[in-house]
Amino acid sequence: MALVDRTLLGPGPSNPYPEATAALAAPLLGHLDPEFLRVLDETCDRLRRVWGTHNARTLPLSGTGSIGMEAAFANFVRHGDVVVVAVNGLFGERMVDVASRYGANVVRVDHDWGTPVDVERVLAAHPEPSLVAAVHAETSTGVLSDIRALSLAVHKRDQRTLVLADCVTSLAGIEVAIDAWDVDLAYSGTQKCLGVAPGLSPFTVSPRAWDRRVQRPPTWYLDLNLIGAYVDGSTGGRTYHHTAPVAMIASLHAALGRVLEEGLEQVWARHHAAGTLLQQGLQDQGLELFAAEGHRLPELTTVRVPAGVDSAKVRQILLTEYGIEIGAGAGAFASSVWRIGLMGHNARPDRVELVLGALRAAIAKA
Amino acid sequence: MALVDRTLLGPGPSNPYPEATAALAAPLLGHLDPEFLRVLDETCDRLRRVWGTHNARTLPLSGTGSIGMEAAFANFVRHGDVVVVAVNGLFGERMVDVASRYGANVVRVDHDWGTPVDVERVLAAHPEPSLVAAVHAETSTGVLSDIRALSLAVHKRDQRTLVLADCVTSLAGIEVAIDAWDVDLAYSGTQKCLGVAPGLSPFTVSPRAWDRRVQRPPTWYLDLNLIGAYVDGSTGGRTYHHTAPVAMIASLHAALGRVLEEGLEQVWARHHAAGTLLQQGLQDQGLELFAAEGHRLPELTTVRVPAGVDSAKVRQILLTEYGIEIGAGAGAFASSVWRIGLMGHNARPDRVELVLGALRAAIAKA
Repeated sequence: MALVDRTLLGPGPSNPYPEATAALAAPLLGHLDPEFLRVLDETCDRLRRVWGTHNARTLPLSGTGSIGMEAAFANFVRHGDVVVVAVNGLFGERMVDVASRYGANVVRVDHDWGTPVDVERVLAAHPEPSLVAAVHAETSTGVLSDIRALSLAVHKRDQRTLVLADCVTSLAGIEVAIDAWDVDLAYSGTQKCLGVAPGLSPFTVSPRAWDRRVQRPPTWYLDLNLIGAYVDGSTGGRTYHHTAPVAMIASLHAALGRVLEEGLEQVWARHHAAGTLLQQGLQDQGLELFAAEGHRLPELTTVRVPAGVDSAKVRQILLTEYGIEIGAGAGAFASSVWRIGLMGHNARPDRVELVLGALRAAIAKA
Repeated sequence: MALVDRTLLGPGPSNPYPEATAALAAPLLGHLDPEFLRVLDETCDRLRRVWGTHNARTLPLSGTGSIGMEAAFANFVRHGDVVVVAVNGLFGERMVDVASRYGANVVRVDHDWGTPVDVERVLAAHPEPSLVAAVHAETSTGVLSDIRALSLAVHKRDQRTLVLADCVTSLAGIEVAIDAWDVDLAYSGTQKCLGVAPGLSPFTVSPRAWDRRVQRPPTWYLDLNLIGAYVDGSTGGRTYHHTAPVAMIASLHAALGRVLEEGLEQVWARHHAAGTLLQQGLQDQGLELFAAEGHRLPELTTVRVPAGVDSAKVRQILLTEYGIEIGAGAGAFASSVWRIGLMGHNARPDRVELVLGALRAAIAKA
């Protein structure tokens, strides 16, 4: 059977770095093999560098990006805790759902989709929340929010409030600086700018948050106390919890090696250059960008479908004739917006030229 | 850096089928790509054949084996439900923990480790439990329990009781027949007899269980209502839930294809032959098997460490000199039992000869 290959320029997954693909198919190791534990430790170290943190509790969770969101609320929210959630897209919306399942008293702060989180409004929503959550890079809208400003403002008011940041589409694409921004909890996914297949959720916990963790969360699989006893070898032993997804971790290890070898700032610059080129090129074609100016993600561009153009038909032509995947819009914008990702290995000028040319041709044909 | 390869003869992961490894490194597809959705649908169909079921709700969950256990209790147990758990090893013990986190009133039925589940004692434990749970193939002890007898007896007494079977180490290694055995809920892991890297948990739900699911479980990531809206394309649409681990699913798809091409009964016979050969060979070397006679798993053999032999040293020699991983014992038997797996691609006579010879040499050296 012939294999199908695609250029993955949607909201993720993106085409992995070649090193990540090669590592997936490398000989498999046991989850307690000293050689694998070395790879795991090094993966956690590399994650710390990419997150910009010294947090001891920094690890890949065994599920796709959303499992990080679940782990955050499951391990750090108690029944009745006030949780303020900034909602400016689908993933803020999802945080409201997840937090409420774990018994949080959720105070949501709604924003128009396509606009960034308003720090003042989030602060004003409640005088002393237990946790404040926001999305750094909204995958549904292509909007960047200023997590640094939010986190510093929250902690200036009250050091005890935890700050949670969804970094699924930001990590290893744009600057993330957990320690400098004083963020307590953050999660990501491997299939975006990290350039790995979907299947892991990098996660990090500040010492302040760790002190306030739930001792026996409702979830066993995501109980960070139990997971930590396996992942953290610094105390000597390794207590088996669940079988780690060894192939995926080896793949993440390899991609992180590639990213750090290129240099984090160079990687961010590459994403910035590609995104700028794409956004300029789309506007030069007469297309209108969706995300508010000044708050646009370089790694994920949202563009309005021109009046009279069949959104799905254009995507269909791109997929079948050009082998290119771009994304539909999310939620109410499903048929009026396209999402074009330039993430990880795809944050390159050749991908920009490719998608600009193919999109122009597909719109003309549709 | 040199790659390390191992012969994985512990309790899992096992060396994947070559088709599974090749598929892991195949070009990545998006989780909404029609070509990937075809692979996903076919994977669910193939899983139905391997599970021996027509259950519509049969799918791979996005986590390692234990996530199936979590999903079962999260979606089918309500606060205060009486759950009878047969405990004859580590994984029965784990079910007690997970069920109690979801609010179950757990009635545990303890057995000596190394012995099978006693159907009469489990039945006698409570007159009308909501759910009865047991492990088919106890990975911690190498013991096979008669899930068929248990399930039929439970349902003969009361059709409303749900039966949950942990099939992590049984599926695609020994007979599993969900429909014929009238089992309601079952989960497995990919890294054992299915011959895939760890990272997915095949799961199946009977119509009777589905009717009694929790409408809004405490977990969002494992909410089967939401996952079903993405996985089940039979009703037309596909609603995005989380990004499916596409590479892992493609790998599972390939391994299932290999298993079904060989033929399920042939695969079981291959495991049976390899296990019999190993167990005879170990006894011929004067070693004593741990699991009760007549209840030994062919795919996972437990053997007592001879008196005066350093268990860890033997495993160390096997790993460093022969590149062979076998497992330590579990729980109280950590240093007095070894676990030797012959699962999936490793259920072959050459692996038997290899491990018998190497173990004899390692014991002599230790």
